[in-house]
Amino acid sequence: MSNLMLEARSGVCDEVVCKIAADEGINTDKLLRLIGSGRVVIVRNIRRSNVQPIGIGEGLRTKVNANVGTSSEVVDYNLEIEKALIAQKYGADTIMDLSTGGDIDYIRREIIKAVNTPVGTVPIYEAAIEAVNKKGAIVSMDEDIIFNTIIKQLKDGVDFLTVHVGVTKDIVEHLKTHPRKLGMVSRGGVFHASWILHNNKENPLYANFDYLLEIAKEFDITLSLGDGLRPGCIEDATDWAQLRELLTISDLVQKAWIAGVQVMVEGPGHIPLNQIQVNIILQKTLCKEAPFYVLGPLVTDIAPGYDHIVSAIGGALAGLHGADFLCYVTPSEHLAIPSKEEVKEGVIASKIAAHAVDIARGNLNALKRDSEMAKARKELNWESEFKLALDPEKARNIYSRVKVKNETCTMCGEYCAVKLLSKYLKVDSDKTPIC
Amino acid sequence: MSNLMLEARSGVCDEVVCKIAADEGINTDKLLRLIGSGRVVIVRNIRRSNVQPIGIGEGLRTKVNANVGTSSEVVDYNLEIEKALIAQKYGADTIMDLSTGGDIDYIRREIIKAVNTPVGTVPIYEAAIEAVNKKGAIVSMDEDIIFNTIIKQLKDGVDFLTVHVGVTKDIVEHLKTHPRKLGMVSRGGVFHASWILHNNKENPLYANFDYLLEIAKEFDITLSLGDGLRPGCIEDATDWAQLRELLTISDLVQKAWIAGVQVMVEGPGHIPLNQIQVNIILQKTLCKEAPFYVLGPLVTDIAPGYDHIVSAIGGALAGLHGADFLCYVTPSEHLAIPSKEEVKEGVIASKIAAHAVDIARGNLNALKRDSEMAKARKELNWESEFKLALDPEKARNIYSRVKVKNETCTMCGEYCAVKLLSKYLKVDSDKTPIC
Repeated sequence: MSNLMLEARSGVCDEVVCKIAADEGINTDKLLRLIGSGRVVIVRNIRRSNVQPIGIGEGLRTKVNANVGTSSEVVDYNLEIEKALIAQKYGADTIMDLSTGGDIDYIRREIIKAVNTPVGTVPIYEAAIEAVNKKGAIVSMDEDIIFNTIIKQLKDGVDFLTVHVGVTKDIVEHLKTHPRKLGMVSRGGVFHASWILHNNKENPLYANFDYLLEIAKEFDITLSLGDGLRPGCIEDATDWAQLRELLTISDLVQKAWIAGVQVMVEGPGHIPLNQIQVNIILQKTLCKEAPFYVLGPLVTDIAPGYDHIVSAIGGALAGLHGADFLCYVTPSEHLAIPSKEEVKEGVIASKIAAHAVDIARGNLNALKRDSEMAKARKELNWESEFKLALDPEKARNIYSRVKVKNETCTMCGEYCAVKLLSKYLKVDSDKTPIC
Repeated sequence: MSNLMLEARSGVCDEVVCKIAADEGINTDKLLRLIGSGRVVIVRNIRRSNVQPIGIGEGLRTKVNANVGTSSEVVDYNLEIEKALIAQKYGADTIMDLSTGGDIDYIRREIIKAVNTPVGTVPIYEAAIEAVNKKGAIVSMDEDIIFNTIIKQLKDGVDFLTVHVGVTKDIVEHLKTHPRKLGMVSRGGVFHASWILHNNKENPLYANFDYLLEIAKEFDITLSLGDGLRPGCIEDATDWAQLRELLTISDLVQKAWIAGVQVMVEGPGHIPLNQIQVNIILQKTLCKEAPFYVLGPLVTDIAPGYDHIVSAIGGALAGLHGADFLCYVTPSEHLAIPSKEEVKEGVIASKIAAHAVDIARGNLNALKRDSEMAKARKELNWESEFKLALDPEKARNIYSRVKVKNETCTMCGEYCAVKLLSKYLKVDSDKTPIC
């Protein structure tokens, strides 16, 4: 049985790790230390043959996740597979299948076949829906359904799982007397909370965390410790419930590492700009630098239709302060299941945030691309500009919609700054600095 | 002759100032002190009757500017007027007319008539084009053309002017032996630089800054000290040329204040995320807290087609650290003159950034709107949600494209977290905290 974390601690470099080190431009020994200490996770399921494993965490390129999946209202398997492929095409590093409608096993297996990125799921969705189908209600879900669903999904090749292990009985009880403006907005979190309240029992994933670790270890997958209590609006940001859950999660991170299981921690949520840094510092400190997977953060509540932008702002700032993995948000967030076009827009907005973070961190591959774009702009070399763009087709379409008389664009035309300057400023090339 | 800055120093509260204090929810005496010390500017031309003056600076709501205008390639007056009206509709606080094609006087006057927001211009554009038309080249422009153009535009009612007073002979000469990756990308800056290099003379606006101040004072307008040396790519960020220009500008700020002329300072440009804070601190410190008007900042070069998002990220972070006024960037930046739809997208992206900054600063009006949105979401009150959204129509369209069976949306359907939680979590309302 292969276990990347334990092997890394012994200094053994699996070929997966060697390849990632080369791709990311990081020293192999350093990467092994980061994996061994939990600061980097390598996401892959040992049973899945078509996965291109990726690393997430300190010293690596900032990664982006895209969610796809059916809902109880819209079930179109081909559409969801297309969305997964679009997300992959525009640079999503992982895909999460969050299906809750139709044949959930079928769509998951098809998505796993269709893409090479690691695929993640939230198994409590399928478990809860099975409980509804077989017993009439989520709250009638028995604990075995949860673990059996997890095992089934891992056998299918799922590479990482969101598990809401921090939604404990004490936090949910606390909400009764200390309500939040918007309660809980995490679906998985609410499934657990409803079950806990109805059955007056502890969250099975928390109560049986050791068993969960055993299962994760068998497939050498990564657990993503979900934030069921993430704030659903600016007013609930950085509150008691959110921090209490983070404290619980931080204990479980330690437990996972002792067992040799890789974990990430999921974070908020709706957070104002001025609280993002403190949220990252808290997570990174409490969770001993475990990779941080942020959902947003959304820096305002008032822009439905544009939450990909709201979230790119929050994600960029989170990344600047140390977040490692950005979950995309689409323009249809808070309104509807996304269209294919909205999936693309969501991925690109998140890629912009992630790339801006990599630039800020001095990532050489990232800097090189921006440098080449600057060179292309200086030369008014439009073909190069399109090629280097995150979305070459859109850039070309905007440029081409009106024919220009010379090599400039329709914005400045003959008064193009780049063109004019090159006419009047003759650079003394002998004196050009070396760097 | 009315002069808001001098009156403010004497503690006289003009009705314009009183109205702005009320709208912004700021104490009048405090606002007067901020205006008197130059930390806030009140933008209006005393000769313009249809302007709704606004305040920009410390303690006030973050403002957004939208650029419109013809180019040498695309001259469609009605289209540019429509763009100005669209920008105003979606919340632009000011409009700049940057026309460089067709009858520049005509389009400027029509835009001034069409909108109530303050209108800004870059008069060197018209002066340079007049020089081309009358004398065959920008570099043949005589100094009188510049000042006569400024006076003409102010008589038309222009409320603020961008003047590239910091593009001095020494900086332009320095570029010969210390070239930048992308030279200069400011059109106005390059007009001056070309003129300086060809004529071997100092920038007339710098050399005759006192005369410029006299003119500005007569119309009680605000000068926006433009950044002709703003970096045009990530690699040029925060470099010698940019900082040298800022030093020059900071001297001129003092000079303007002594003369009783309101000024803003324009800032970069293409700046990586990790350099935004330092740029704001430098400007605010050197320029003694003069309002900072940022163009972007753009945090990566590789996203043509999406530079409104790139710029919203930079603008939000700049605002968080103290920038007061965000210039929008549209999706067509670096590619083409924007379409009407792109103007709308640009304004909304900037408004998101500005609003997120206001939330972070604890602006009560801003917080109230997010709080109302959270309440609407809790109640699944879609009509309220649309009404509170920055773009009600887009939000409604996304929500409505597939009919939902109940009061939820197509994303979560029957597994809506908000709906489920309200079923199982019975809040003890007696114990609800007061705040």
